[in-house]
Amino acid sequence: MAVAYSRFLVSETHAIVDPPNLMVSSAVPPPCSSVTLTQDDLKKIAAYKAVEHVKSGMVVGLGTGSTAKHAVDRIAQLLQQGKLKDIVGIPTSTKTHEQAVSLGIPLSDLDSHPVVDLAIDGADEVDPGLNLVKGRGGSLLREKMVESASKKFIVIVDESKWVNYIGGSKLAMPVEVIPFCWNHSLKRLVGLFAYAGCVGELRKCAESGKAFVTDNGNYIIDLYFERDIGDLNKASDAILRLPGIVEHGMFIGLATSVIVAGVEGVTMKTKVGDQLEVNCFRYNDLRNGF
Amino acid sequence: MAVAYSRFLVSETHAIVDPPNLMVSSAVPPPCSSVTLTQDDLKKIAAYKAVEHVKSGMVVGLGTGSTAKHAVDRIAQLLQQGKLKDIVGIPTSTKTHEQAVSLGIPLSDLDSHPVVDLAIDGADEVDPGLNLVKGRGGSLLREKMVESASKKFIVIVDESKWVNYIGGSKLAMPVEVIPFCWNHSLKRLVGLFAYAGCVGELRKCAESGKAFVTDNGNYIIDLYFERDIGDLNKASDAILRLPGIVEHGMFIGLATSVIVAGVEGVTMKTKVGDQLEVNCFRYNDLRNGF
Repeated sequence: MAVAYSRFLVSETHAIVDPPNLMVSSAVPPPCSSVTLTQDDLKKIAAYKAVEHVKSGMVVGLGTGSTAKHAVDRIAQLLQQGKLKDIVGIPTSTKTHEQAVSLGIPLSDLDSHPVVDLAIDGADEVDPGLNLVKGRGGSLLREKMVESASKKFIVIVDESKWVNYIGGSKLAMPVEVIPFCWNHSLKRLVGLFAYAGCVGELRKCAESGKAFVTDNGNYIIDLYFERDIGDLNKASDAILRLPGIVEHGMFIGLATSVIVAGVEGVTMKTKVGDQLEVNCFRYNDLRNGF
Repeated sequence: MAVAYSRFLVSETHAIVDPPNLMVSSAVPPPCSSVTLTQDDLKKIAAYKAVEHVKSGMVVGLGTGSTAKHAVDRIAQLLQQGKLKDIVGIPTSTKTHEQAVSLGIPLSDLDSHPVVDLAIDGADEVDPGLNLVKGRGGSLLREKMVESASKKFIVIVDESKWVNYIGGSKLAMPVEVIPFCWNHSLKRLVGLFAYAGCVGELRKCAESGKAFVTDNGNYIIDLYFERDIGDLNKASDAILRLPGIVEHGMFIGLATSVIVAGVEGVTMKTKVGDQLEVNCFRYNDLRNGF
Protein backbone atom coordinates (compact mmCIF):
# COMPACT_ATOMS: atom_id res chain seq x y z
CA MET A 1 0.00 0.00 0.00
CA ALA A 2 1.76 3.15 -1.17
CA VAL A 3 0.11 6.25 0.24
CA ALA A 4 1.26 9.84 0.55
CA TYR A 5 1.51 10.56 4.24
CA SER A 6 0.03 14.03 3.90
CA ARG A 7 -3.34 12.48 2.99
CA PHE A 8 -3.59 11.06 6.51
CA LEU A 9 -3.29 14.32 8.40
CA VAL A 10 -6.54 16.05 8.97
CA SER A 11 -6.96 17.05 12.56
CA GLU A 12 -4.63 17.78 15.41
CA THR A 13 -4.98 17.81 19.16
CA HIS A 14 -2.44 19.21 21.57
CA ALA A 15 -1.69 18.83 25.24
CA ILE A 16 1.20 19.00 27.66
CA VAL A 17 1.29 16.14 30.15
CA ASP A 18 3.74 14.84 32.71
CA PRO A 19 5.81 11.84 31.57
CA PRO A 20 4.01 9.34 33.85
CA ASN A 21 0.69 10.33 32.25
CA LEU A 22 1.90 9.84 28.75
CA MET A 23 -0.34 7.12 27.43
CA VAL A 24 -2.27 8.58 24.62
CA SER A 25 -4.79 5.94 23.64
CA SER A 26 -7.65 7.86 25.25
CA ALA A 27 -6.78 10.97 23.22
CA VAL A 28 -7.22 9.37 19.80
CA PRO A 29 -10.43 8.31 18.08
CA PRO A 30 -11.73 4.73 17.90
CA PRO A 31 -10.31 2.40 15.25
CA CYS A 32 -11.10 2.97 11.62
CA SER A 33 -12.68 -0.08 10.12
CA SER A 34 -12.67 0.87 6.45
CA VAL A 35 -8.92 0.51 5.75
CA THR A 36 -6.45 -1.98 7.16
CA LEU A 37 -3.02 -0.50 7.78
CA THR A 38 -0.12 -2.92 7.77
CA GLN A 39 2.77 -2.54 10.20
CA ASP A 40 4.87 -1.31 7.28
CA ASP A 41 2.24 1.34 6.49
CA LEU A 42 2.51 2.57 10.07
CA LYS A 43 6.29 2.69 9.84
CA LYS A 44 6.03 4.73 6.66
CA ILE A 45 3.52 7.13 8.21
CA ALA A 46 5.83 7.76 11.18
CA ALA A 47 8.83 8.19 8.88
CA TYR A 48 7.10 10.66 6.57
CA LYS A 49 5.89 12.69 9.53
CA ALA A 50 9.45 12.91 10.86
CA VAL A 51 10.83 14.06 7.52
CA GLU A 52 8.54 17.10 7.71
CA HIS A 53 11.06 18.38 10.27
CA VAL A 54 13.97 18.22 7.82
CA LYS A 55 14.75 21.65 6.40
CA SER A 56 17.02 22.63 3.53
CA GLY A 57 20.64 23.09 4.57
CA MET A 58 20.47 20.63 7.45
CA VAL A 59 22.99 17.96 8.42
CA VAL A 60 20.74 14.92 8.94
CA GLY A 61 21.52 11.66 10.74
CA LEU A 62 20.13 8.79 8.68
CA GLY A 63 19.00 5.84 10.76
CA THR A 64 19.05 2.14 10.04
CA GLY A 65 16.26 -0.43 9.90
CA SER A 66 12.90 -1.03 8.28
CA THR A 67 11.34 2.20 9.62
CA ALA A 68 14.30 4.50 9.08
CA LYS A 69 14.58 3.19 5.52
CA HIS A 70 11.29 4.92 4.72
CA ALA A 71 12.65 8.21 6.06
CA VAL A 72 15.74 7.96 3.87
CA ASP A 73 13.55 7.18 0.86
CA ARG A 74 11.37 10.17 1.63
CA ILE A 75 14.33 12.56 2.01
CA ALA A 76 15.66 11.40 -1.35
CA GLN A 77 12.23 11.89 -2.91
CA LEU A 78 11.98 15.47 -1.61
CA LEU A 79 15.52 16.21 -2.81
CA GLN A 80 14.63 14.91 -6.27
CA GLN A 81 11.47 17.02 -6.28
CA GLY A 82 13.50 20.09 -5.30
CA LYS A 83 11.48 20.51 -2.10
CA LEU A 84 14.67 20.00 -0.06
CA LYS A 85 18.12 21.36 -0.94
CA ASP A 86 21.65 21.24 0.44
CA ILE A 87 21.06 18.26 2.72
CA VAL A 88 24.10 16.44 4.10
CA GLY A 89 23.31 12.94 5.34
CA ILE A 90 25.29 11.14 8.06
CA PRO A 91 24.52 7.42 7.71
CA THR A 92 24.48 5.21 10.79
CA SER A 93 25.46 1.97 9.06
CA THR A 94 27.06 0.65 5.93
CA LYS A 95 23.59 -0.53 4.87
CA THR A 96 22.12 2.97 5.14
CA HIS A 97 25.21 4.37 3.46
CA GLU A 98 24.56 2.11 0.48
CA GLN A 99 20.86 3.00 0.39
CA ALA A 100 21.60 6.75 0.52
CA VAL A 101 24.29 6.52 -2.15
CA SER A 102 21.92 4.63 -4.44
CA LEU A 103 19.33 7.39 -3.95
CA GLY A 104 21.80 10.20 -4.56
CA ILE A 105 21.73 11.76 -1.08
CA PRO A 106 24.98 13.72 -0.43
CA LEU A 107 26.80 12.10 2.49
CA SER A 108 29.46 12.96 5.04
CA ASP A 109 30.53 11.71 8.48
CA LEU A 110 31.02 12.92 12.04
CA ASP A 111 34.70 13.70 11.46
CA SER A 112 33.68 16.36 8.90
CA HIS A 113 30.33 17.27 10.49
CA PRO A 114 30.64 16.74 14.24
CA VAL A 115 27.31 18.47 14.92
CA VAL A 116 24.18 16.96 13.40
CA ASP A 117 21.06 19.15 13.17
CA LEU A 118 18.52 16.35 13.21
CA ALA A 119 18.69 12.57 13.33
CA ILE A 120 15.78 10.31 12.42
CA ASP A 121 15.84 6.65 13.35
CA GLY A 122 13.66 3.78 14.45
CA ALA A 123 13.76 1.97 17.79
CA ASP A 124 12.92 -1.46 19.15
CA GLU A 125 11.41 -0.20 22.39
CA VAL A 126 10.30 3.19 23.70
CA ASP A 127 9.49 3.68 27.39
CA PRO A 128 7.36 6.47 28.94
CA GLY A 129 10.46 8.65 29.48
CA LEU A 130 11.43 8.32 25.78
CA ASN A 131 14.31 6.03 26.63
CA LEU A 132 14.93 3.48 23.90
CA VAL A 133 16.22 0.05 23.09
CA LYS A 134 17.91 -0.01 19.72
CA GLY A 135 20.21 -2.33 17.88
CA ARG A 136 18.17 -5.40 17.13
CA GLY A 137 19.28 -4.62 13.58
CA GLY A 138 22.89 -4.63 14.78
CA SER A 139 23.86 -0.98 14.17
CA LEU A 140 23.53 0.35 17.69
CA LEU A 141 27.05 1.75 18.05
CA ARG A 142 27.18 3.96 14.96
CA GLU A 143 23.58 4.96 15.61
CA LYS A 144 24.47 6.06 19.12
CA MET A 145 27.52 7.97 17.90
CA VAL A 146 25.48 9.92 15.36
CA GLU A 147 22.40 10.42 17.53
CA SER A 148 24.34 11.56 20.57
CA ALA A 149 25.93 14.22 18.33
CA SER A 150 22.50 15.47 17.16
CA LYS A 151 20.77 18.62 18.34
CA LYS A 152 17.42 16.90 17.73
CA PHE A 153 16.73 13.20 17.51
CA ILE A 154 13.29 12.09 16.28
CA VAL A 155 12.47 8.44 16.88
CA ILE A 156 9.95 6.84 14.54
CA VAL A 157 8.06 3.72 15.54
CA ASP A 158 4.83 1.86 15.08
CA GLU A 159 2.78 1.45 18.23
CA SER A 160 4.01 -2.10 18.88
CA LYS A 161 7.25 -0.59 20.21
CA TRP A 162 5.74 1.04 23.29
CA VAL A 163 6.79 -0.59 26.56
CA ASN A 164 6.15 0.25 30.19
CA TYR A 165 9.83 -0.24 31.00
CA ILE A 166 13.03 -0.97 29.09
CA GLY A 167 13.12 -4.71 28.43
CA GLY A 168 9.37 -4.89 28.82
CA SER A 169 8.83 -6.37 25.36
CA LYS A 170 10.77 -9.46 26.51
CA LEU A 171 12.74 -9.10 23.30
CA ALA A 172 16.47 -8.53 23.06
CA MET A 173 18.48 -5.68 24.57
CA PRO A 174 21.64 -5.95 22.45
CA VAL A 175 25.17 -5.38 23.72
CA GLU A 176 28.12 -5.05 21.33
CA VAL A 177 31.21 -6.88 22.62
CA ILE A 178 34.64 -7.59 21.25
CA PRO A 179 34.90 -11.14 19.87
CA PHE A 180 37.80 -11.98 22.23
CA CYS A 181 36.35 -14.19 25.00
CA TRP A 182 32.78 -13.19 24.22
CA ASN A 183 31.42 -16.02 26.34
CA HIS A 184 33.19 -14.56 29.36
CA SER A 185 31.58 -11.20 28.60
CA LEU A 186 28.19 -12.89 28.26
CA LYS A 187 28.50 -14.47 31.70
CA ARG A 188 29.54 -11.19 33.29
CA LEU A 189 26.64 -9.35 31.64
CA VAL A 190 24.11 -11.94 32.77
CA GLY A 191 25.63 -11.83 36.25
CA LEU A 192 25.05 -8.06 36.44
CA PHE A 193 21.32 -8.51 35.98
CA ALA A 194 20.69 -11.77 37.83
CA TYR A 195 18.23 -9.81 40.01
CA ALA A 196 16.09 -9.17 36.90
CA GLY A 197 16.09 -12.80 35.73
CA CYS A 198 18.46 -12.01 32.88
CA VAL A 199 19.51 -14.52 30.26
CA GLY A 200 21.80 -13.84 27.33
CA GLU A 201 22.88 -15.37 24.08
CA LEU A 202 25.28 -14.70 21.25
CA ARG A 203 23.50 -13.39 18.17
CA LYS A 204 23.98 -15.65 15.15
CA CYS A 205 23.28 -15.28 11.47
CA ALA A 206 20.13 -17.21 10.59
CA GLU A 207 21.65 -18.46 7.33
CA SER A 208 25.16 -19.45 8.35
CA GLY A 209 24.68 -20.17 12.04
CA LYS A 210 27.89 -18.25 12.64
CA ALA A 211 28.23 -15.29 14.98
CA PHE A 212 26.68 -12.09 13.63
CA VAL A 213 29.43 -9.51 13.05
CA THR A 214 28.72 -5.78 13.35
CA ASP A 215 29.99 -3.06 11.02
CA ASN A 216 32.79 -2.60 13.57
CA GLY A 217 33.89 -6.23 13.53
CA ASN A 218 32.34 -7.01 16.91
CA TYR A 219 29.75 -9.51 18.19
CA ILE A 220 26.31 -8.91 19.70
CA ILE A 221 25.14 -10.43 22.98
CA ASP A 222 21.35 -10.29 23.25
CA LEU A 223 20.10 -9.87 26.82
CA TYR A 224 16.56 -10.73 27.88
CA PHE A 225 15.09 -9.52 31.16
CA GLU A 226 12.33 -11.24 33.07
CA ARG A 227 11.74 -8.15 35.20
CA ASP A 228 12.45 -4.40 35.20
CA ILE A 229 16.19 -3.70 35.61
CA GLY A 230 15.50 -0.49 37.53
CA ASP A 231 17.71 2.62 37.28
CA LEU A 232 18.82 2.76 33.65
CA ASN A 233 21.80 5.05 34.20
CA LYS A 234 23.18 2.73 36.87
CA ALA A 235 22.59 -0.25 34.60
CA SER A 236 24.33 1.54 31.74
CA ASP A 237 27.43 2.39 33.78
CA ALA A 238 27.63 -1.15 35.14
CA ILE A 239 27.62 -2.56 31.61
CA LEU A 240 30.13 -0.06 30.24
CA ARG A 241 32.55 -0.70 33.11
CA LEU A 242 32.96 -4.33 32.04
CA PRO A 243 36.10 -4.62 29.91
CA GLY A 244 35.28 -6.17 26.56
CA ILE A 245 31.96 -4.34 26.25
CA VAL A 246 31.88 -1.81 23.44
CA GLU A 247 28.35 -0.38 23.68
CA HIS A 248 24.82 -1.31 24.70
CA GLY A 249 21.48 -0.72 23.04
CA MET A 250 19.88 1.45 25.73
CA PHE A 251 19.58 5.03 24.45
CA ILE A 252 18.94 6.91 27.65
CA GLY A 253 17.85 10.53 27.39
CA LEU A 254 18.92 10.89 23.75
CA ALA A 255 15.55 11.10 21.97
CA THR A 256 14.07 14.59 21.81
CA SER A 257 10.86 13.44 20.08
CA VAL A 258 9.09 10.17 19.36
CA ILE A 259 6.58 9.75 16.55
CA VAL A 260 4.30 6.75 17.02
CA ALA A 261 2.05 5.56 14.24
CA GLY A 262 -0.87 3.44 15.39
CA VAL A 263 -3.94 2.08 13.66
CA GLU A 264 -5.94 4.95 15.15
CA GLY A 265 -3.63 7.88 14.42
CA VAL A 266 -0.19 9.36 14.85
CA THR A 267 1.21 10.75 18.08
CA MET A 268 4.28 12.92 18.38
CA LYS A 269 5.79 13.36 21.82
CA THR A 270 8.46 16.03 22.26
CA LYS A 271 10.53 16.88 25.30
CA VAL A 272 9.95 20.44 26.50
CA GLY A 273 12.08 20.89 29.59
CA ASP A 274 10.95 18.27 32.12
CA GLN A 275 7.63 17.73 30.37
CA LEU A 276 6.40 16.10 27.21
CA GLU A 277 4.37 17.94 24.61
CA VAL A 278 1.98 15.53 22.91
CA ASN A 279 0.47 16.11 19.45
CA CYS A 280 -2.11 13.69 18.08
CA PHE A 281 -3.03 13.44 14.40
CA ARG A 282 -6.17 11.50 13.37
CA TYR A 283 -6.78 9.45 10.26
CA ASN A 284 -10.07 11.11 9.36
CA ASP A 285 -9.35 10.75 5.66
CA LEU A 286 -9.39 7.02 6.10
CA ARG A 287 -12.87 7.15 7.61
CA ASN A 288 -14.08 8.92 4.53
CA GLY A 289 -13.21 6.01 2.31
CA PHE A 290 -9.61 6.88 1.38
CA MET B 1 73.45 -8.61 32.59
CA ALA B 2 71.85 -11.94 33.42
CA VAL B 3 71.50 -12.39 37.16
CA ALA B 4 69.47 -14.81 39.25
CA TYR B 5 66.98 -12.72 41.15
CA SER B 6 67.41 -14.74 44.33
CA ARG B 7 70.96 -13.41 44.71
CA PHE B 8 69.59 -9.93 45.31
CA LEU B 9 67.35 -10.74 48.24
CA VAL B 10 69.07 -10.57 51.53
CA SER B 11 67.16 -8.50 53.99
CA GLU B 12 63.55 -7.56 54.44
CA THR B 13 61.75 -4.78 56.25
CA HIS B 14 58.06 -4.68 56.89
CA ALA B 15 55.58 -1.99 57.78
CA ILE B 16 51.93 -1.15 57.33
CA VAL B 17 51.35 2.43 56.31
CA ASP B 18 48.39 4.45 55.10
CA PRO B 19 48.29 4.96 51.32
CA PRO B 20 49.19 8.68 51.48
CA ASN B 21 52.40 7.79 53.34
CA LEU B 22 53.49 5.22 50.87
CA MET B 23 56.77 6.54 49.60
CA VAL B 24 59.39 4.09 50.61
CA SER B 25 62.65 5.69 49.63
CA SER B 26 63.58 6.39 53.26
CA ALA B 27 63.24 2.69 54.11
CA VAL B 28 65.83 1.42 51.64
CA PRO B 29 69.59 1.75 51.91
CA PRO B 30 71.66 4.28 49.99
CA PRO B 31 72.64 3.52 46.39
CA CYS B 32 75.06 0.74 45.68
CA SER B 33 78.03 2.02 43.78
CA SER B 34 79.70 -1.25 42.87
CA VAL B 35 77.18 -2.51 40.28
CA THR B 36 75.19 -0.55 37.73
CA LEU B 37 71.72 -1.94 37.13
CA THR B 38 70.11 -1.19 33.80
CA GLN B 39 66.40 -0.47 33.50
CA ASP B 40 66.00 -3.92 32.00
CA ASP B 41 67.75 -5.46 35.01
CA LEU B 42 65.25 -3.75 37.26
CA LYS B 43 62.34 -5.01 35.17
CA LYS B 44 63.71 -8.54 35.43
CA ILE B 45 64.17 -8.25 39.18
CA ALA B 46 60.56 -7.15 39.63
CA ALA B 47 59.33 -9.89 37.31
CA TYR B 48 61.24 -12.66 39.05
CA LYS B 49 60.03 -11.49 42.44
CA ALA B 50 56.43 -11.65 41.21
CA VAL B 51 56.84 -15.16 39.86
CA GLU B 52 57.70 -16.33 43.38
CA HIS B 53 53.95 -15.98 44.01
CA VAL B 54 53.04 -18.44 41.26
CA LYS B 55 52.24 -21.87 42.70
CA SER B 56 51.73 -25.20 40.93
CA GLY B 57 48.16 -25.72 39.70
CA MET B 58 47.44 -22.02 39.26
CA VAL B 59 45.66 -20.31 36.38
CA VAL B 60 48.01 -17.39 35.65
CA GLY B 61 47.33 -14.23 33.64
CA LEU B 62 50.35 -13.50 31.46
CA GLY B 63 50.94 -9.81 30.85
CA THR B 64 52.32 -7.99 27.84
CA GLY B 65 55.31 -5.72 27.46
CA SER B 66 59.02 -5.56 28.20
CA THR B 67 58.62 -6.21 31.95
CA ALA B 68 55.92 -8.89 31.74
CA LYS B 69 58.01 -10.70 29.14
CA HIS B 70 60.57 -11.49 31.85
CA ALA B 71 57.84 -12.98 34.03
CA VAL B 72 56.66 -15.24 31.21
CA ASP B 73 60.25 -16.32 30.58
CA ARG B 74 60.70 -17.08 34.27
CA ILE B 75 57.50 -19.13 34.52
CA ALA B 76 58.61 -21.17 31.51
CA GLN B 77 62.02 -21.67 33.08
CA LEU B 78 60.50 -22.95 36.34
CA LEU B 79 58.17 -25.26 34.41
CA GLN B 80 61.12 -26.67 32.49
CA GLN B 81 63.02 -27.17 35.75
CA GLY B 82 60.04 -28.99 37.27
CA LYS B 83 59.76 -26.40 40.03
CA LEU B 84 56.28 -25.47 38.80
CA LYS B 85 53.65 -27.90 37.50
CA ASP B 86 50.12 -27.78 36.06
CA ILE B 87 50.20 -24.10 35.22
CA VAL B 88 47.56 -22.76 32.82
CA GLY B 89 48.49 -19.43 31.27
CA ILE B 90 45.96 -16.86 30.07
CA PRO B 91 47.79 -14.54 27.65
CA THR B 92 46.76 -10.88 27.41
CA SER B 93 47.81 -10.34 23.79
CA THR B 94 48.64 -12.20 20.63
CA LYS B 95 52.29 -11.27 21.23
CA THR B 96 52.33 -12.90 24.67
CA HIS B 97 50.40 -15.85 23.27
CA GLU B 98 53.17 -16.37 20.74
CA GLN B 99 55.89 -16.01 23.36
CA ALA B 100 54.19 -18.49 25.70
CA VAL B 101 53.58 -21.01 22.92
CA SER B 102 57.24 -20.80 21.89
CA LEU B 103 58.23 -21.50 25.50
CA GLY B 104 55.84 -24.43 25.92
CA ILE B 105 53.56 -22.87 28.56
CA PRO B 106 50.09 -24.54 28.45
CA LEU B 107 47.51 -21.90 27.54
CA SER B 108 43.80 -21.34 27.80
CA ASP B 109 41.41 -18.35 27.79
CA LEU B 110 38.76 -16.68 29.91
CA ASP B 111 35.97 -18.60 28.22
CA SER B 112 37.40 -21.86 29.57
CA HIS B 113 38.92 -20.38 32.74
CA PRO B 114 36.80 -17.42 33.80
CA VAL B 115 38.57 -17.13 37.15
CA VAL B 116 42.30 -16.40 37.13
CA ASP B 117 44.27 -17.11 40.33
CA LEU B 118 47.03 -14.60 39.71
CA ALA B 119 47.90 -12.16 36.95
CA ILE B 120 51.32 -10.57 36.54
CA ASP B 121 51.80 -7.58 34.28
CA GLY B 122 53.72 -4.37 33.86
CA ALA B 123 52.33 -0.84 33.94
CA ASP B 124 53.20 2.56 32.52
CA GLU B 125 52.28 4.52 35.63
CA VAL B 126 51.50 3.59 39.24
CA ASP B 127 49.98 6.15 41.62
CA PRO B 128 50.04 6.09 45.44
CA GLY B 129 46.68 4.25 45.55
CA LEU B 130 48.04 1.52 43.20
CA ASN B 131 45.92 2.80 40.33
CA LEU B 132 47.63 2.30 37.00
CA VAL B 133 48.01 3.54 33.48
CA LYS B 134 48.54 0.69 31.06
CA GLY B 135 48.37 0.19 27.35
CA ARG B 136 51.24 2.18 25.94
CA GLY B 137 52.09 -1.16 24.34
CA GLY B 138 48.58 -1.29 22.89
CA SER B 139 47.13 -4.32 24.73
CA LEU B 140 45.08 -2.53 27.38
CA LEU B 141 41.74 -4.14 26.61
CA ARG B 142 42.69 -7.80 26.81
CA GLU B 143 44.92 -7.00 29.78
CA LYS B 144 41.99 -5.40 31.59
CA MET B 145 39.71 -8.34 30.76
CA VAL B 146 42.16 -10.85 32.21
CA GLU B 147 43.28 -8.77 35.16
CA SER B 148 39.77 -7.83 36.22
CA ALA B 149 39.00 -11.56 36.31
CA SER B 150 41.98 -12.28 38.57
CA LYS B 151 41.83 -12.96 42.29
CA LYS B 152 45.29 -11.39 42.64
CA PHE B 153 46.99 -9.00 40.26
CA ILE B 154 50.68 -8.24 40.83
CA VAL B 155 52.03 -5.26 38.92
CA ILE B 156 55.73 -5.25 38.15
CA VAL B 157 57.56 -2.01 37.38
CA ASP B 158 60.88 -0.28 37.64
CA GLU B 159 60.88 2.81 39.80
CA SER B 160 60.56 5.19 36.84
CA LYS B 161 56.87 4.31 36.71
CA TRP B 162 55.92 5.92 40.03
CA VAL B 163 53.75 9.02 39.66
CA ASN B 164 52.04 11.28 42.17
CA TYR B 165 48.84 11.17 40.15
CA ILE B 166 47.56 9.38 37.05
CA GLY B 167 48.87 11.26 34.02
CA GLY B 168 51.69 12.69 36.13
CA SER B 169 54.41 11.28 33.87
CA LYS B 170 53.10 13.55 31.08
CA LEU B 171 53.19 10.47 28.89
CA ALA B 172 50.20 8.92 27.14
CA MET B 173 47.00 7.64 28.75
CA PRO B 174 45.74 5.42 25.91
CA VAL B 175 42.08 5.01 24.95
CA GLU B 176 40.96 2.27 22.55
CA VAL B 177 38.32 3.52 20.09
CA ILE B 178 36.54 2.04 17.11
CA PRO B 179 38.07 3.25 13.83
CA PHE B 180 34.72 4.69 12.65
CA CYS B 181 34.94 8.49 13.04
CA TRP B 182 37.94 8.24 15.37
CA ASN B 183 38.62 11.96 14.98
CA HIS B 184 35.18 12.72 16.36
CA SER B 185 35.95 10.48 19.34
CA LEU B 186 39.29 12.23 19.82
CA LYS B 187 37.60 15.63 20.01
CA ARG B 188 35.01 14.41 22.47
CA LEU B 189 37.70 12.85 24.67
CA VAL B 190 39.82 16.01 24.68
CA GLY B 191 36.68 18.01 25.43
CA LEU B 192 35.99 15.92 28.53
CA PHE B 193 39.32 16.89 30.05
CA ALA B 194 39.71 20.47 28.85
CA TYR B 195 39.94 21.47 32.53
CA ALA B 196 43.15 19.41 32.83
CA GLY B 197 44.80 20.88 29.73
CA CYS B 198 44.25 17.67 27.77
CA VAL B 199 45.55 17.10 24.26
CA GLY B 200 45.13 13.91 22.24
CA GLU B 201 46.46 12.25 19.15
CA LEU B 202 45.92 9.13 17.11
CA ARG B 203 48.64 6.57 17.71
CA LYS B 204 50.53 5.70 14.55
CA CYS B 205 53.00 3.00 13.62
CA ALA B 206 56.49 4.46 13.59
CA GLU B 207 57.42 2.50 10.47
CA SER B 208 54.36 2.90 8.25
CA GLY B 209 52.93 6.14 9.57
CA LYS B 210 49.52 4.48 9.45
CA ALA B 211 47.17 4.19 12.40
CA PHE B 212 48.24 1.62 14.96
CA VAL B 213 45.67 -1.20 15.07
CA THR B 214 45.04 -3.18 18.26
CA ASP B 215 44.56 -6.94 18.54
CA ASN B 216 40.82 -6.17 18.43
CA GLY B 217 40.98 -4.18 15.19
CA ASN B 218 40.58 -0.81 16.92
CA TYR B 219 42.62 2.40 17.10
CA ILE B 220 44.34 4.05 20.05
CA ILE B 221 43.91 7.71 21.01
CA ASP B 222 46.74 8.85 23.30
CA LEU B 223 45.66 11.48 25.81
CA TYR B 224 48.13 13.78 27.58
CA PHE B 225 47.18 15.76 30.67
CA GLU B 226 48.79 19.00 31.75
CA ARG B 227 47.23 18.72 35.21
CA ASP B 228 45.64 16.14 37.53
CA ILE B 229 42.27 14.97 36.16
CA GLY B 230 40.87 14.49 39.68
CA ASP B 231 38.40 11.73 40.59
CA LEU B 232 39.47 8.70 38.54
CA ASN B 233 36.17 6.84 38.79
CA LYS B 234 34.27 9.85 37.51
CA ALA B 235 36.78 10.28 34.70
CA SER B 236 36.47 6.59 33.82
CA ASP B 237 32.67 6.69 33.63
CA ALA B 238 32.75 9.87 31.54
CA ILE B 239 35.07 8.23 29.02
CA LEU B 240 33.15 4.97 28.86
CA ARG B 241 29.84 6.77 28.31
CA LEU B 242 31.09 8.20 25.01
CA PRO B 243 29.85 5.98 22.18
CA GLY B 244 32.76 4.79 20.07
CA ILE B 245 35.05 4.31 23.07
CA VAL B 246 35.95 0.69 23.72
CA GLU B 247 38.21 0.94 26.77
CA HIS B 248 40.72 3.22 28.48
CA GLY B 249 44.10 2.56 30.01
CA MET B 250 43.31 3.55 33.62
CA PHE B 251 43.24 0.44 35.80
CA ILE B 252 41.47 1.71 38.88
CA GLY B 253 41.47 -0.50 41.95
CA LEU B 254 42.50 -3.64 40.05
CA ALA B 255 46.08 -4.12 41.29
CA THR B 256 46.34 -6.06 44.54
CA SER B 257 50.15 -5.71 44.75
CA VAL B 258 52.85 -3.65 43.07
CA ILE B 259 56.47 -4.73 42.95
CA VAL B 260 58.86 -1.86 42.25
CA ALA B 261 62.48 -2.50 41.43
CA GLY B 262 64.77 0.46 42.00
CA VAL B 263 68.51 0.93 41.98
CA GLU B 264 68.46 0.73 45.77
CA GLY B 265 66.21 -2.27 46.29
CA VAL B 266 62.85 -3.87 45.66
CA THR B 267 59.59 -2.80 47.26
CA MET B 268 56.40 -4.81 47.27
CA LYS B 269 53.21 -3.02 48.23
CA THR B 270 50.12 -5.11 48.87
CA LYS B 271 46.59 -4.04 49.63
CA VAL B 272 45.38 -5.26 53.02
CA GLY B 273 41.88 -3.93 53.50
CA ASP B 274 42.12 -0.16 53.32
CA GLN B 275 45.84 -0.14 53.99
CA LEU B 276 48.99 -1.05 52.15
CA GLU B 277 51.50 -3.52 53.49
CA VAL B 278 55.00 -2.57 52.36
CA ASN B 279 57.89 -5.03 52.12
CA CYS B 280 61.36 -3.80 51.22
CA PHE B 281 64.16 -6.02 49.99
CA ARG B 282 67.71 -4.66 49.88
CA TYR B 283 70.50 -5.42 47.43
CA ASN B 284 73.06 -6.21 50.10
CA ASP B 285 74.71 -8.83 47.96
CA LEU B 286 75.53 -6.16 45.46
CA ARG B 287 77.38 -4.19 48.11
CA ASN B 288 79.54 -7.19 48.76
CA GLY B 289 80.89 -7.21 45.25
CA PHE B 290 78.35 -9.41 43.46
